Amino acid sequence: MPVSEFDLIDRYFRRQAAQRDDVVLGIGDDAAVMQVPADRQLVVAMDTLVAGRHFPPQTAAFDIGWKALAVNLSDLAAMGARPAWATLSLTVPAVDEDWLEGFATGFFQLAGQYQVALVGGDTTRGPLSVTVQVHGLVENGKALRRAGARAGQRLFITGTLGDAACALQALRAGHSVAPDRLRRLNRPEPRVDFGLALAGSGAAVIDISDGLLADLGHLLDASQCGATLWIDRLPCAPGPGPAMEPGMLDCQLQGGDDYELCFSLDAGQVGTLSRFARELQLPITEIGVIEAQTGIRCRHEDGRLYTPSGTGFDHFREVVNDQGRPA
Amino acid sequence: MPVSEFDLIDRYFRRQAAQRDDVVLGIGDDAAVMQVPADRQLVVAMDTLVAGRHFPPQTAAFDIGWKALAVNLSDLAAMGARPAWATLSLTVPAVDEDWLEGFATGFFQLAGQYQVALVGGDTTRGPLSVTVQVHGLVENGKALRRAGARAGQRLFITGTLGDAACALQALRAGHSVAPDRLRRLNRPEPRVDFGLALAGSGAAVIDISDGLLADLGHLLDASQCGATLWIDRLPCAPGPGPAMEPGMLDCQLQGGDDYELCFSLDAGQVGTLSRFARELQLPITEIGVIEAQTGIRCRHEDGRLYTPSGTGFDHFREVVNDQGRPA
Repeated sequence: MPVSEFDLIDRYFRRQAAQRDDVVLGIGDDAAVMQVPADRQLVVAMDTLVAGRHFPPQTAAFDIGWKALAVNLSDLAAMGARPAWATLSLTVPAVDEDWLEGFATGFFQLAGQYQVALVGGDTTRGPLSVTVQVHGLVENGKALRRAGARAGQRLFITGTLGDAACALQALRAGHSVAPDRLRRLNRPEPRVDFGLALAGSGAAVIDISDGLLADLGHLLDASQCGATLWIDRLPCAPGPGPAMEPGMLDCQLQGGDDYELCFSLDAGQVGTLSRFARELQLPITEIGVIEAQTGIRCRHEDGRLYTPSGTGFDHFREVVNDQGRPA
Repeated sequence: MPVSEFDLIDRYFRRQAAQRDDVVLGIGDDAAVMQVPADRQLVVAMDTLVAGRHFPPQTAAFDIGWKALAVNLSDLAAMGARPAWATLSLTVPAVDEDWLEGFATGFFQLAGQYQVALVGGDTTRGPLSVTVQVHGLVENGKALRRAGARAGQRLFITGTLGDAACALQALRAGHSVAPDRLRRLNRPEPRVDFGLALAGSGAAVIDISDGLLADLGHLLDASQCGATLWIDRLPCAPGPGPAMEPGMLDCQLQGGDDYELCFSLDAGQVGTLSRFARELQLPITEIGVIEAQTGIRCRHEDGRLYTPSGTGFDHFREVVNDQGRPA
């Protein structure tokens, strides 16, 4: 007898990573019911991962489950919101129980880290695709935005840039990838705690999913200003570094899939946030300065301009491999 | 120059069907921010439509946009919740501007009927698939559930059953379909207003998406009871009727895609709800009775048992055409 949709839901997705008093009615009815505290606003983000577009087809089920939630939690982090609930729509080509077990394990492992309850969703059959919506809570009026950066503010980034894109390029070219670098591609760590620390600071914030240039561009557009970016200061994981690794700088500027937070701060706020980052053992790096002139100017330390080869990941452009051909 | 994801979002999805004061921050940031009133609970439902599985590939873009929202609003109706906001994740194989315009027009036309604001989502490229999440509001503690039906209660259905499934069968067999019947398949009308009238009544409610037998089965499972269903009373649209149309009864019992509300009522509640249904010009029909004995017994008026050929739409079963072969 074939496994029915409802058996699947029961078997893999009814487990709960988090018991939350604010879930009035979870999975199993026509919809879920939740209680939002009177002093909180609701923050929602929805992202879809399509096989072969947002992750290589050979990606492990655990990693797909983790990443589908992580990219959404990263959006909540960029708003300074505390994660609360998730819904999941999973489309799979066939019922593969090992795959479902792996996927659910990855999803719930990350959900448990942030006390996220899965409250509903949908499962259906079709080409592999995962849509997650996350719901977070933020104190009234304290949500972070892309808008609000002002000329003279200092520009920062959490963590490091470029590893995920380099890993993806190497995989596409059939090369081996170091485990640490592969982990950055497959199991991004959303910067939720740092986002919570930023909440209410008035910082302009965005998460880097489509590449630093593209996403910083959105922040600057929303803020109606520009920036100079010091490209020699872009943080990268321990290793040979951009000077020694061809293509690394492009990955840092345009690669995407970093899920770091890029944010602007007044000089007076830097000390507090730096201390908090140290407590979290999450480095933050000053990578530029906000300017009134629109556009992004990439400069070396000696002031020379650098012209990037592109602007970032576009969900509708052909994905090309490192030979420049469609992947 | 190819159209970028962001251009697309701007062009087709930034229009607003509803201006809502409770949307603090809509489309265009990392996430949306909304204000939930202190005396309301949040109700969320998410459903995905996959091309070729949930709608025929030739379905008009307008209808896909309409239906993707309608099936979700139907879930809110079954909870007695008032629709408020939606998020949309749209995966399309290519950028077809006529298609996008049609899709957006259908989506926003229905959104406007219920003052639903589109607050966020995702667009990406891949096999055609639409995921919508709707967010509704309900007075604290008044959400309707599948659970709570009790032996002796009367069982009702809104509207009519079977037209959508009959239309789908005819399309698959290459037959022509009357416009009214096709409309039931492609532009279902969620029973939002009637659901609001039911809210707080304590009625057990479910919406009929996967077929009456399957969905009534869920209501009865949640309520830990059973029912007798009078199959000769199942309401159908004007036309030859089940007695004259081979297969119609199966469509009514197992076809799905009806998006009517099935609910149980105490005898004392029937008058009020019937009056409200008349005001809405939405017929409601008594189709059975809740019983302590679990299971569903289908009976003719003369008491003879009827044995259905199956139980309803299963998202993981092969879709078969009317010759019983995989479609």
